[in-house]
Amino acid sequence: MRPTLADAARGRILFGGDYNPEQWPEETWHEDVRLMKAAHVNSVTLGVFSWSTLEPEPGAREFGWLDRLMDLLHESGVGVVLATPTASPPPWMGRLHPDTLPRDADGRTEVWGGRQHFSHSSATYRRYAAAITEDLAARYAGHPALTMWHINNEYCTFDYGDEAAAAFRRWLRTRYGTLDALNSAWGTAFWSQGYDTWDGILPPRHAHYLKNPAQVLDFRRFTSDMLLECFTAERGIVRRYTPHTPVTSNFMPLWIGQDAWRWAGEEDVVSVDVYPDPRDPLGGQRGALVHDLTRSQARGPWMLMEQAAGPVNWRGVNHPKPRGLGRLWSLQAVARGADAVCYFQWRQSRQGAEKFHSGMVSHAGEQGRTYQEIRRIGAELASVGAEVTGTRIDADVAILHDWHSWWAGAHEGRLSREVDLPEVLTAWHRALWEAHLTCDFAHPEHDLSGYRLVVVPQLYLLTDAAVGNLLSYVGDGGTLVCGFLTGVADEDDRIRPGGMDARLRGLFGIRTLHEWWPLEAGETVRCEGFRGTLWSEEIEAEPGAAETVPYRGGELDGLPAVLRNGRAWYVSTLPEPDALRELLASAAAGAGVRPVLAGLPAGVEAVRRGGLLFLLNHGKEPVTVHVPGSHQEMLGGEKVTGSVTLDRYGVAVLRP
Amino acid sequence: MRPTLADAARGRILFGGDYNPEQWPEETWHEDVRLMKAAHVNSVTLGVFSWSTLEPEPGAREFGWLDRLMDLLHESGVGVVLATPTASPPPWMGRLHPDTLPRDADGRTEVWGGRQHFSHSSATYRRYAAAITEDLAARYAGHPALTMWHINNEYCTFDYGDEAAAAFRRWLRTRYGTLDALNSAWGTAFWSQGYDTWDGILPPRHAHYLKNPAQVLDFRRFTSDMLLECFTAERGIVRRYTPHTPVTSNFMPLWIGQDAWRWAGEEDVVSVDVYPDPRDPLGGQRGALVHDLTRSQARGPWMLMEQAAGPVNWRGVNHPKPRGLGRLWSLQAVARGADAVCYFQWRQSRQGAEKFHSGMVSHAGEQGRTYQEIRRIGAELASVGAEVTGTRIDADVAILHDWHSWWAGAHEGRLSREVDLPEVLTAWHRALWEAHLTCDFAHPEHDLSGYRLVVVPQLYLLTDAAVGNLLSYVGDGGTLVCGFLTGVADEDDRIRPGGMDARLRGLFGIRTLHEWWPLEAGETVRCEGFRGTLWSEEIEAEPGAAETVPYRGGELDGLPAVLRNGRAWYVSTLPEPDALRELLASAAAGAGVRPVLAGLPAGVEAVRRGGLLFLLNHGKEPVTVHVPGSHQEMLGGEKVTGSVTLDRYGVAVLRP
Amino acid sequence: MRPTLADAARGRILFGGDYNPEQWPEETWHEDVRLMKAAHVNSVTLGVFSWSTLEPEPGAREFGWLDRLMDLLHESGVGVVLATPTASPPPWMGRLHPDTLPRDADGRTEVWGGRQHFSHSSATYRRYAAAITEDLAARYAGHPALTMWHINNEYCTFDYGDEAAAAFRRWLRTRYGTLDALNSAWGTAFWSQGYDTWDGILPPRHAHYLKNPAQVLDFRRFTSDMLLECFTAERGIVRRYTPHTPVTSNFMPLWIGQDAWRWAGEEDVVSVDVYPDPRDPLGGQRGALVHDLTRSQARGPWMLMEQAAGPVNWRGVNHPKPRGLGRLWSLQAVARGADAVCYFQWRQSRQGAEKFHSGMVSHAGEQGRTYQEIRRIGAELASVGAEVTGTRIDADVAILHDWHSWWAGAHEGRLSREVDLPEVLTAWHRALWEAHLTCDFAHPEHDLSGYRLVVVPQLYLLTDAAVGNLLSYVGDGGTLVCGFLTGVADEDDRIRPGGMDARLRGLFGIRTLHEWWPLEAGETVRCEGFRGTLWSEEIEAEPGAAETVPYRGGELDGLPAVLRNGRAWYVSTLPEPDALRELLASAAAGAGVRPVLAGLPAGVEAVRRGGLLFLLNHGKEPVTVHVPGSHQEMLGGEKVTGSVTLDRYGVAVLRP
Repeated sequence: MRPTLADAARGRILFGGDYNPEQWPEETWHEDVRLMKAAHVNSVTLGVFSWSTLEPEPGAREFGWLDRLMDLLHESGVGVVLATPTASPPPWMGRLHPDTLPRDADGRTEVWGGRQHFSHSSATYRRYAAAITEDLAARYAGHPALTMWHINNEYCTFDYGDEAAAAFRRWLRTRYGTLDALNSAWGTAFWSQGYDTWDGILPPRHAHYLKNPAQVLDFRRFTSDMLLECFTAERGIVRRYTPHTPVTSNFMPLWIGQDAWRWAGEEDVVSVDVYPDPRDPLGGQRGALVHDLTRSQARGPWMLMEQAAGPVNWRGVNHPKPRGLGRLWSLQAVARGADAVCYFQWRQSRQGAEKFHSGMVSHAGEQGRTYQEIRRIGAELASVGAEVTGTRIDADVAILHDWHSWWAGAHEGRLSREVDLPEVLTAWHRALWEAHLTCDFAHPEHDLSGYRLVVVPQLYLLTDAAVGNLLSYVGDGGTLVCGFLTGVADEDDRIRPGGMDARLRGLFGIRTLHEWWPLEAGETVRCEGFRGTLWSEEIEAEPGAAETVPYRGGELDGLPAVLRNGRAWYVSTLPEPDALRELLASAAAGAGVRPVLAGLPAGVEAVRRGGLLFLLNHGKEPVTVHVPGSHQEMLGGEKVTGSVTLDRYGVAVLRP
Repeated sequence: MRPTLADAARGRILFGGDYNPEQWPEETWHEDVRLMKAAHVNSVTLGVFSWSTLEPEPGAREFGWLDRLMDLLHESGVGVVLATPTASPPPWMGRLHPDTLPRDADGRTEVWGGRQHFSHSSATYRRYAAAITEDLAARYAGHPALTMWHINNEYCTFDYGDEAAAAFRRWLRTRYGTLDALNSAWGTAFWSQGYDTWDGILPPRHAHYLKNPAQVLDFRRFTSDMLLECFTAERGIVRRYTPHTPVTSNFMPLWIGQDAWRWAGEEDVVSVDVYPDPRDPLGGQRGALVHDLTRSQARGPWMLMEQAAGPVNWRGVNHPKPRGLGRLWSLQAVARGADAVCYFQWRQSRQGAEKFHSGMVSHAGEQGRTYQEIRRIGAELASVGAEVTGTRIDADVAILHDWHSWWAGAHEGRLSREVDLPEVLTAWHRALWEAHLTCDFAHPEHDLSGYRLVVVPQLYLLTDAAVGNLLSYVGDGGTLVCGFLTGVADEDDRIRPGGMDARLRGLFGIRTLHEWWPLEAGETVRCEGFRGTLWSEEIEAEPGAAETVPYRGGELDGLPAVLRNGRAWYVSTLPEPDALRELLASAAAGAGVRPVLAGLPAGVEAVRRGGLLFLLNHGKEPVTVHVPGSHQEMLGGEKVTGSVTLDRYGVAVLRP
Repeated sequence: MRPTLADAARGRILFGGDYNPEQWPEETWHEDVRLMKAAHVNSVTLGVFSWSTLEPEPGAREFGWLDRLMDLLHESGVGVVLATPTASPPPWMGRLHPDTLPRDADGRTEVWGGRQHFSHSSATYRRYAAAITEDLAARYAGHPALTMWHINNEYCTFDYGDEAAAAFRRWLRTRYGTLDALNSAWGTAFWSQGYDTWDGILPPRHAHYLKNPAQVLDFRRFTSDMLLECFTAERGIVRRYTPHTPVTSNFMPLWIGQDAWRWAGEEDVVSVDVYPDPRDPLGGQRGALVHDLTRSQARGPWMLMEQAAGPVNWRGVNHPKPRGLGRLWSLQAVARGADAVCYFQWRQSRQGAEKFHSGMVSHAGEQGRTYQEIRRIGAELASVGAEVTGTRIDADVAILHDWHSWWAGAHEGRLSREVDLPEVLTAWHRALWEAHLTCDFAHPEHDLSGYRLVVVPQLYLLTDAAVGNLLSYVGDGGTLVCGFLTGVADEDDRIRPGGMDARLRGLFGIRTLHEWWPLEAGETVRCEGFRGTLWSEEIEAEPGAAETVPYRGGELDGLPAVLRNGRAWYVSTLPEPDALRELLASAAAGAGVRPVLAGLPAGVEAVRRGGLLFLLNHGKEPVTVHVPGSHQEMLGGEKVTGSVTLDRYGVAVLRP
């Protein structure tokens, strides 16, 4: 039985953030602890970027400062998520071991002076990483402050260098066994790319023209796997010492580099970093998407490892959070299943590349608005924690998503560079979010029988098993709504005959998919009753098989834009937001799925978690929400009967 | 007497495409042949990217599959354009011989995994290319299916590496003889670039600031010549075996890398790839430009080697061809001189980097609209072939174009990056096309005496011989209309005193060219009666020498925008489309040149080939065209008296 | 006592330009001299790019041509600014000594074929540069034509290569003494960047993610210092031979690479290249800014080393100067303190990368408008020279600017990439310029006691000494107007507690700086009475300390946009131009500073130099200017009583 987030949370919502005290004099540590306590901080993540402090020269160990900190935090009632420092090797490593440095597709070496300058394939790097992990684990295994392990940070590196090339070849031998199988899967008969020896295979380095898509796809698979090997190697070490302490590594949400379904299966706690732009009017929905995706990967409570108390510093223009928005988004995460709400970072750095990235204690210090809001959030999370933690969220709807499909569909030689999967996913999730239909995410080969409605925004690549899964799902009574560019390719990114899997065509009532008609940026296509964006298709329906909504005008006039064959819908364009929301609301109603609450004002989100109803106002104006029955509001403590008024960015947590 | 396209076409229009059966199981070949026959396909191009299949390891030869295919095709009545596979070396070549890989100006090596990863200067590459060419020629010289040789594919590579540098130095020694001559031609006194040894000369690799323009120009000349050496080496080999079989290599239209005039002289058949964007409202005109240019290079019938049956996959958004457009553009090519109308490729690939590039048989297969339209096109070409092939097109107008001038004028240190020669050429050709004035293209040193009107959109660099040619042409009674930035530089890209050749200034009546006034993107300048774009000039006319159309307003108020000195016109801006069309129509009328047909509706193109009149409707609405006299329409078979109605994208081929 | 510009100018305004006769046959030299005399040219700069002519192979010396030229020019009454040719080494240097070539952050080597392909840190380059400098100095020290030395040209190179890396480490050891000090200053505790040996330190080469800002800052400091070492080494050599001949090197204005305050202190003559875009409606103001900055660096008369007689050739679209604009801008430079008005270059090149860059003698030659205007300018400068040269300009206002602050504030990890210091500086200078308030520039640690008003557009980094200087200045009665993002960081780019130096906050009456609110491009924020751009701030004022102008609407409603605490103003946004002009005019009035002339029409600039009043019309329409009293106009010779009319681009120089 593997440990879980509950083993670290112990009935509280974990609240805190990355803490980098090695950047500060020791007197500041005591100030920190005072401010943490005042803000109900109960968890900090230590050591994420401490390698050069812990091991200032090869083989040295400087644990004294960390000992003192662990003790201090424990005495102060703050638990520690202890990180392995392996995301940023010390400068001596690159200097003494250039083989540890990654190379990009253009042959440029990534040197130290930033972070993440390690090759996932470097034996030397892995040896050093294992050694420091081992010593950390051995030293702090029994420390009472330790609540969780955090391995590395935001795994996100690529390497096209020679050691990675050798590893890629080994990975390919394992995958394919024979060169014939590889040549077949990669379609190397095209453009004279047949390999006669394994040694001839390279990562997809700089080429004259379009690269082999299957090679690029496998290189992405390989990269995700190599990074996962780095993770599991360190996880294995700490697990030997502390089998009952959960282990995590933080995802970047919807980041293309890791197959997060596979990774999540290797983690005890699934954690994620969430940074919507405070100026994005749909920031709240983008957050909800990440929450839903992470909760689904975790199959239960999850950890918000990093968010920003104010601005980040990596956008072109970085905006702070208006008053109340940080609280709203924190409680939203809880509403959507988080049992840990944390920040990067506790105290804003005065130096280094992220000194303009906010902290829970900003440059303005204790009197700054930021810290004052953090105190309120901490107090409120503490007040609801016992009732919330460990509870689950029921969803009747699932959105399917798969990294391999994303990788294959993103090839440079695709039909439209305007089609960007994260934006397509976001559009479909937005439709559900605005319709107050709570959803999970699922992998296309997952058991879908628990859902009444399954939504496929786009699964360009579908394995045979996944196709079978979808067919069984509908066959067993499920309702499926499927977007364009789905089922086009098989597992090797081989286009399926007909341009779409024949079984899927049968399911939707498509006789012939004549041509894809991608749209230009900003262009729309008229359909009966709405406008489509991004894409359209020249489809000939199987006579009588499906109800259809036709295109109107233009080259596709009269041809089906939407096909509905019983419980299976196919949508060959991306309807504009209102239309997509109505389409999904209609499909959901037909499948017997109801919104969380009816009659909600625009911008108000409603989620049920455990027995609680969360109401979240994403608007800047106060609104009144009608809530049938009588409830206890848990943050302010009032009784709510019939209706509740939410301030701008206001939240109500209602217990029946 | 060299063989010609007629030796391959034999009274038919060649119809077919690139065929890559090595990507498919052998059973598909028989299906292919069935579909080819049904579509009147009579020619396929084999082996373009078959090197790794033919020579899977160094020195091996696998001809069996090709033997069977050649036989199968011959039995089926399909001729074969057999390609040397040298555009994409097998992976083993780069692995065993890194010297065969090109390097770009930034020093990046282009590796295998795409295509065209060969250095034109590599002795090793050339040795392997010659060997496989020799063996192919020896084996298939006598095969009855063989109709033509296709060397390599779309030659388009650059190489800045060390072996190319050595070749560049040899090329320069040949060109200049002495270092003094090179230093003079390159103007190396500027910025301290005087060379004291040949060894000191490099390709124009990455530099701190602007590169020497003459060095860049010569590197372009060198590159074109090196690629041509690769071509002629392989051509020489196949010609030894089959002196009566024509040889070609396909151009990309208006591609900057090859001096196509020089290349065309080395080819038996001039062929080209034509890919206008189906969404471009001027796609038909852009196609016509390529047709006219290629026909002029061929000095007779030419081969459309590649077009797309539907979308390509290298634009940002790739659009399919609406119903009928493929037929329209195919017949347009015939109207403008093509005796071969082919596609890339026969069957759309399921794998590889171009799996979204259309084929004659699309992913939708036999029932797909694409193949159904291909069948119609094949049948129609078969029906008119006998009457059309071998016939010529008479043009009274010539547009001058020269690659060396383009190369020199494109230097990074020019006055305006908004001036892009292909767009300027296209604007001038469009004016003629919309005025229904059939034109050829010619090199500035060609004999122009056969033309009544010569148009120079822009010839920044003119050799002394070319200047003399233009003067003689006008002196002998010709009419010349000349755009801005013409005659500025001599053969070494040395600015001529006065900023424009003195004899040309005399010809046009220009006393002093004070300053060039380039315009910003989107900016226009007012002239008497029209607006100019892109450019303007501060010119002082020779008093009384020329009629002038003045600029109005602004800094150039009253100065001449257009000068007309007898039969010589100089246009110092780019008039907006209507104005340029009227200007050229007026000059043509003055020169006694008439449009193909008067009173044509907008969007209808008319061309006479041999005794036939082609009418092509580029619009999406049906139109009626008045045609004096009585004709037989050859596609539908009706009699046409007085007028004919063309459907959207409709075509009529009229025989008196 | 160091020599000054007066030693070269000798009571005349130097007029002329870069002269590159090695590009022309010797007969052209005599033509040049004739045209120079006719245009009152009295100074040319020789040899800037003559290295390969002077030293065609290693160690050779070819001085004969230069001897003849020096003699010819002397005989013709034209003085020579003799340049060391070290900005562009001959091709043989890179060939024989690849260690002399710089490498960029991506590892690309910059080769010859352009210019400035030298590594500032290369011992080999420095040895060759010293040798040619020594020989030039020895040969021409006593030549009567010699008036000034010009070292190199537009120093502007970076080098990330290995020899530069070693020099960087030496520079850092000198700066920091110990690794502990460096680790502290760089904040290497962030992201595990602690250095255990000096050997581990690299230039900020290509990294995976954001680079260490202090490392980047020090690399900029190092680069400026290395280039300065190159300069002082050559200066030292020529000074040994000609201690009484002034030495200069030309700046590019507001170029980021050189700490021009520090450089100016090492130069006898401060010179600059000025190239506003003739199409820029604020070109005149941009010129004025450079003039003011350069005059302040020179602390007296300065040299306009390069301007263009017509177009340059490095913009996307390069515009010529309309009639009269060149004269206007030349006289403007004189009005603002120039005692030398020169051009790049004398005769427009026919070859090389700048053949489209204009010359005083353009391609159109003697009859061209350009040369004709040059003649007029030369004559006019000759007529006013005796009265103008050596006189000074009095300014009551100073704008503070510092390169180190610019460097630090420009880090990739800043809050807004829309904030570009040159544009912010330009906006503040424009406000003063439009208000006719003559200003100097000063370094933040300069003695400011001579100014009534000090303006700080933005000084992100302020040393402790600079903060003290500002406080003393206000304490001693000065008026300070300070823009946002000032005083944020200390000398090591360490954020000061509170996000802004506490003493400055006290000065302005700021209790807490809660958050920075950068604005998007084009976005504005409403303030009481005006709109702000680019930035805003969430500030809590110290109660009662300051008068404030509040933000209106939005998140900052009611918070102070501008604070005025006695004589200290803080402006937390960038007011739109009219508002900023009024704000500064009001502050100036309060400080007792008056505009040069009241009631000026828009677009007219007024400057007093010595006893003369310059009136410059930047508009395209004639205007009448009221001038109290009676004056002698010096260019046209009329008496002016009460008012004077200026043509478009017209200038009047009035003597009381």
